[in-house]
Amino acid sequence: MAVLWSAAPSAILFLTVLLLKLHPIWPAAVGLDPRASLPAKPGSPFKIALFADLHFGENAWSDWGPSHDVSSVNVMSTLLDDEKPDFVVYLGDVLTANNFAVENASLYWDQALSPTKSRGIPFASVFGNHDDAPFEWPLEWFSAPGIPPVRCPAESSGDCSFRGTHRLQLMKNEIGQNALSHSFEGPQDLWPSISNYVLQISPTDNPQSPIAFLYFLDSGGGSYRGVISNAQSEWFKTRSLEINPDSRVPELIFWHIPSKAYEKVAPGGGVPQPCVGSINDDKVASQEAETGIMDILASRPSVKAVFVGHNHGNDWCCPDNKLWLCYARHTGYGGYGTREKGARIIEINQQPFSIKSWIRMENHEIHSEVDLSS
Amino acid sequence: MAVLWSAAPSAILFLTVLLLKLHPIWPAAVGLDPRASLPAKPGSPFKIALFADLHFGENAWSDWGPSHDVSSVNVMSTLLDDEKPDFVVYLGDVLTANNFAVENASLYWDQALSPTKSRGIPFASVFGNHDDAPFEWPLEWFSAPGIPPVRCPAESSGDCSFRGTHRLQLMKNEIGQNALSHSFEGPQDLWPSISNYVLQISPTDNPQSPIAFLYFLDSGGGSYRGVISNAQSEWFKTRSLEINPDSRVPELIFWHIPSKAYEKVAPGGGVPQPCVGSINDDKVASQEAETGIMDILASRPSVKAVFVGHNHGNDWCCPDNKLWLCYARHTGYGGYGTREKGARIIEINQQPFSIKSWIRMENHEIHSEVDLSS
Repeated sequence: MAVLWSAAPSAILFLTVLLLKLHPIWPAAVGLDPRASLPAKPGSPFKIALFADLHFGENAWSDWGPSHDVSSVNVMSTLLDDEKPDFVVYLGDVLTANNFAVENASLYWDQALSPTKSRGIPFASVFGNHDDAPFEWPLEWFSAPGIPPVRCPAESSGDCSFRGTHRLQLMKNEIGQNALSHSFEGPQDLWPSISNYVLQISPTDNPQSPIAFLYFLDSGGGSYRGVISNAQSEWFKTRSLEINPDSRVPELIFWHIPSKAYEKVAPGGGVPQPCVGSINDDKVASQEAETGIMDILASRPSVKAVFVGHNHGNDWCCPDNKLWLCYARHTGYGGYGTREKGARIIEINQQPFSIKSWIRMENHEIHSEVDLSS
Repeated sequence: MAVLWSAAPSAILFLTVLLLKLHPIWPAAVGLDPRASLPAKPGSPFKIALFADLHFGENAWSDWGPSHDVSSVNVMSTLLDDEKPDFVVYLGDVLTANNFAVENASLYWDQALSPTKSRGIPFASVFGNHDDAPFEWPLEWFSAPGIPPVRCPAESSGDCSFRGTHRLQLMKNEIGQNALSHSFEGPQDLWPSISNYVLQISPTDNPQSPIAFLYFLDSGGGSYRGVISNAQSEWFKTRSLEINPDSRVPELIFWHIPSKAYEKVAPGGGVPQPCVGSINDDKVASQEAETGIMDILASRPSVKAVFVGHNHGNDWCCPDNKLWLCYARHTGYGGYGTREKGARIIEINQQPFSIKSWIRMENHEIHSEVDLSS
């Protein structure tokens, strides 16, 4: 026993060095939750569908509101059946929270998740500016017909203020109710933003060699300012250096409101070269300030593209130096805009490595194919 | 006993008729809460001070915010000592709730009440659009220095959404904590507006013969629309017919946001004749819609004047047919506007009856005297 014990320290050291060599990415060491891992079939492309601006719960008191939600479920179902993605990203404005007078908006959130859940597809979400917005009382409710019956908890005795369901509550509900959810609340020190986290796509036969990292950031709006804070940027910087120190693994970034960098890459009037897309109808409605995230992203060669929603009339990808700045495609029947609905698809191929993207429409057509790894 | 009992019904009837004759206004019959009664010294004027737009809690994270609140306490103290009113009306925007990140805004509300309370003067309040507004996060908090420490209840585990303290909670606190408060939450069927009620000024030697009725209405804003609803107008109509059916007793009306009728009586550029006032700097920022209250007020000869705040740059009273439309005077150091602070005073004289008003300034001066009973 004495001999064994004395040999133990060097054996442990040897095993540790061996393990570190075999596993250049070591989830436990960098604090990646097992739920942050997305398994990819070895050698197969990994396909992500972006569902942007679904705006569930719009005009909840009228017929057309709920009928739009049914249409949004239908468009998601069609897109999922056409593309059969490995993963779905809900890219914010899942809800139009300012349109419904309920105490807990998770009911609508769950509706939006349903087509993905029912197909057993894993998913994750980030917040948009409408997701936790307070209810905007319709002016006509104050005229003669009065306020229609609204569901007001008895215990609040008239205090039906409908200030919106907080991001934290929405996210706790999504994670708690859905084994397929890969979302995270995000570190508390990044509060009041909630959905800040990183996921790792790894082949099932070599889970310690990630194919890509997906970063999700909360670009705010709704209950607070529409901005990615300096604290979030610093979190990204620290986290990415920690888990991908040599920028060897490609990184894709997802948030809702375009950063100011989007304003200059596609001046209005059609989609300009070398951008790729089909519509450029909207003036970029960017975040309220740029506190540093874009410089940090630009400094990492591994960051390939940023994906946002928010402007329903834009669906382009434009290069900005070495980065691609991409819009998703307006997916929901909720929210402004009468263009056909669709979803941006991202396909990550392992051998040879490439990141391709296209837009799949509800009418099954595909357009705007682009190579984001070029 | 048998004789006594058989005589009882007619005796009760006789006494009831006698009491009704002696007391043409019978609080119990019309449902007036004893707290709705304001006693007036027989033969003496009854003086009301209007404290409008105090805006406590402004820029709570800086020096100048709290120092403004101290100045607002000082101006109220000076005005109260100069005028010695019998009653104080807090005419809304007591708080700038969008400026402070606390879970319960009643702390600031209590500060605003303190000079009046400490002098033993009874008071009542109506809500303005800033009183229950959600916190507006300063953009600079998202840059490098980050979010300063804010008091966030531990149990909410990061869910510090600071959506504003609801009117109902503010009002419950005011009433529950203050024996001098004559405010009411207002009927629940007028929800989401809260401060809708009527008070009765009566001489102590003849409490059943009111001198005047004071009506308070919540003109909305903040957590919902800035409007007096049709339901509130109907409530006023029913209530005023019930307790003052022959329009014998004068009625004064108090709310925060001017109605659209204010827009036409004093076109910009000085205070026009026959208006009386000292400043007319602001374009009238009126309610979002007119759902009928002004027509109802105009139809009652007993309604003498409406008093509002909201526009800090106006302090006039203008006749509008038989009604006077009056602004208060910006009282608080909080809120926009660098004019000297003051308060509109209303004096109700019993014999001969008159309603006089003037503005008392912090520097002790008096101006803009007007007879509102003419």
